[in-house]
Amino acid sequence: MLFDHCTWDDDYKAITQDIRRRLVKLAQCSPSTYTAVLMQGSGTFGVESVLTSVVGPGEKVLLCTNGAYGDRQVEICRHAGVAWRQYAEPYDTIPSAAKVEAILDEDPSITHVSMIHSETTSGLLNDIEAVARVAKAHGKTFMVDAMSSFGGVDIPVEDWGIDFLVSSANKCIQGVPGFSFIIANTAALKASKGKARSLSLDLYDQWRGLEDGDGKWRYTSPTHVVLAFHKALEEMEAQGGLAARSGRYALNNRLLIARMGTLGFSTFLKDHQGPIITTFLYPDGTDFDFADLYAFIKERGYAIYPGKLTDEETFRLGNIGEIYVDDIVRVTELFALYMAERGLLEPACGTADVAEAIRRMDEAGTAVLAGAPAGVRLHA
Amino acid sequence: MLFDHCTWDDDYKAITQDIRRRLVKLAQCSPSTYTAVLMQGSGTFGVESVLTSVVGPGEKVLLCTNGAYGDRQVEICRHAGVAWRQYAEPYDTIPSAAKVEAILDEDPSITHVSMIHSETTSGLLNDIEAVARVAKAHGKTFMVDAMSSFGGVDIPVEDWGIDFLVSSANKCIQGVPGFSFIIANTAALKASKGKARSLSLDLYDQWRGLEDGDGKWRYTSPTHVVLAFHKALEEMEAQGGLAARSGRYALNNRLLIARMGTLGFSTFLKDHQGPIITTFLYPDGTDFDFADLYAFIKERGYAIYPGKLTDEETFRLGNIGEIYVDDIVRVTELFALYMAERGLLEPACGTADVAEAIRRMDEAGTAVLAGAPAGVRLHA
Repeated sequence: MLFDHCTWDDDYKAITQDIRRRLVKLAQCSPSTYTAVLMQGSGTFGVESVLTSVVGPGEKVLLCTNGAYGDRQVEICRHAGVAWRQYAEPYDTIPSAAKVEAILDEDPSITHVSMIHSETTSGLLNDIEAVARVAKAHGKTFMVDAMSSFGGVDIPVEDWGIDFLVSSANKCIQGVPGFSFIIANTAALKASKGKARSLSLDLYDQWRGLEDGDGKWRYTSPTHVVLAFHKALEEMEAQGGLAARSGRYALNNRLLIARMGTLGFSTFLKDHQGPIITTFLYPDGTDFDFADLYAFIKERGYAIYPGKLTDEETFRLGNIGEIYVDDIVRVTELFALYMAERGLLEPACGTADVAEAIRRMDEAGTAVLAGAPAGVRLHA
Repeated sequence: MLFDHCTWDDDYKAITQDIRRRLVKLAQCSPSTYTAVLMQGSGTFGVESVLTSVVGPGEKVLLCTNGAYGDRQVEICRHAGVAWRQYAEPYDTIPSAAKVEAILDEDPSITHVSMIHSETTSGLLNDIEAVARVAKAHGKTFMVDAMSSFGGVDIPVEDWGIDFLVSSANKCIQGVPGFSFIIANTAALKASKGKARSLSLDLYDQWRGLEDGDGKWRYTSPTHVVLAFHKALEEMEAQGGLAARSGRYALNNRLLIARMGTLGFSTFLKDHQGPIITTFLYPDGTDFDFADLYAFIKERGYAIYPGKLTDEETFRLGNIGEIYVDDIVRVTELFALYMAERGLLEPACGTADVAEAIRRMDEAGTAVLAGAPAGVRLHA
């Protein structure tokens, strides 16, 4: 990340092209039918690029939402004058393929269907496969925001019939933030030519630029971030690729939930908990000050997330990244220590003894680790 | 650049706020009337953010253009449905304040005036001060793309009456690419509320987010790039700030032009040559292969730019960055060596002897350096 490349230099362009090839492969797509486009900005810029470049005038997108990132798609369409219809579910409920089908039957003006895969508002993993099937059966273009799942959850993009999938450099591929990327069905992308409402976010033009310039971005690209992402892709492959990474994330997530459970923390979601981020409820009878908790944990080397639900007191723990069993053990121990110091341990889990609380966590963790699949690396 | 910050962590937010304060100061603005907004993406994203957030429905912007970056503003308006009128000059001519005045008198529907400061298509520096005066006298909002000049050329933003100025992290402040920034008249910015055509590029919302969140970006920010930029601002101050940097750039540019001149290269521009980038014509009677020249120079540690003019054979040399006299000497010597190897030295400057060509360059350079202002650092 410390080398200065010219954005249009051949060596740099070759790196961009290699990234694009690797992404198409990681998406389990054929390079003859799918392509990858890199887009400056955060993940939201990538999502906006797809929605405002692909849904043309006279077309309409069905937004299936159950969290803040779905709601954000509504705001994108509202700003840019993209016609939309929202099908909203509560934040703990997945959009139903049957309901999507009923809406498509009822409203033939809908041309596109969009949804979030991993809704990090709650941590829920939506069933994009089922909705893709319905969208395809009705001849609709299907787009997915897989920001925090692509690379960390198995998504056979072509088999499932996803036409556009958006993710970002700094999520499961473990790069640093600075650009997003779009896996696109090349034919659907070509059909979007001339529809974009924004020059900067024009997905077709961005693709055309990368193709015609053999990896030259249309506008200045975040070269250092791109170098880091290329390295991250190489590291991922060296670590065993998608199978190893998704296995590690899922195991870490199960371990986290099991250990936190013995401390009295239950998950907000009763179903469809995804392996990326978990929303925890505070134990009954406890009174947490999140800022105080955050500071305690941060001083000891970890960052945790505030909750994003409006009507319940929660916080979130993410397990994307170069995180292993030792990190999960350590961070949950920090919770026990914090709770003991603040007098919250006994009301939460019935013992004021930190050693006993940790013993119970370890016991729960051992059971999870016993079920770890072969090939998942446990330690850094 | 190697530290991972949470995008909403307090330490990181404090860095963002410090950057914003330093930018307002560097723009020579009062923090009570001006503010700074950071925007993800390249410089084009920043320019689009201003044009599509500030020129509302029923309003119209006059685009004063004389190069590719002015033409790009036309494309931005066309994509986003922003009403515009273009006043185009040839690429070697600056837009005239008198002509702008005549257009404003003739067309009262124009509410905004926009122009480029340093047009890197040619290397020309436009007279934004004169046009700002006319725009202000007519009560119009005035916006400037100062991408490659802000920090490297003296621009008293508030005194000149510039309402919105856009630049980018990787230009004269010498950060790395990944975001742009906007210096904004706070009252004019507030007046733009609700006008944006894009959620991601909504300038008012981005500012509101930074203010309400005390430095929290609305969406994931390029944290590593932001850290590099903060360090770059600190370095710039330690090196003597705007005066030292603009002095160094101007001197390097004069030195470059003088030395290249003795080799037979004349500048495309006869007037209004800016201190940032220079377009050179190939000497009469020579036949250059740019790709071959580029490769020769690159192997020896420097990157040069292809020309961006359609009807003349040119190339460009930029002198933004941590570049000193020794670099200018070295890169011009590489030109002499290249030309000697390819048999181009004699037709270009009348001698086939590299030592003699370099002696002439040094002589021309000595005259330039004799006029170097005090306080300009010559060597790294």
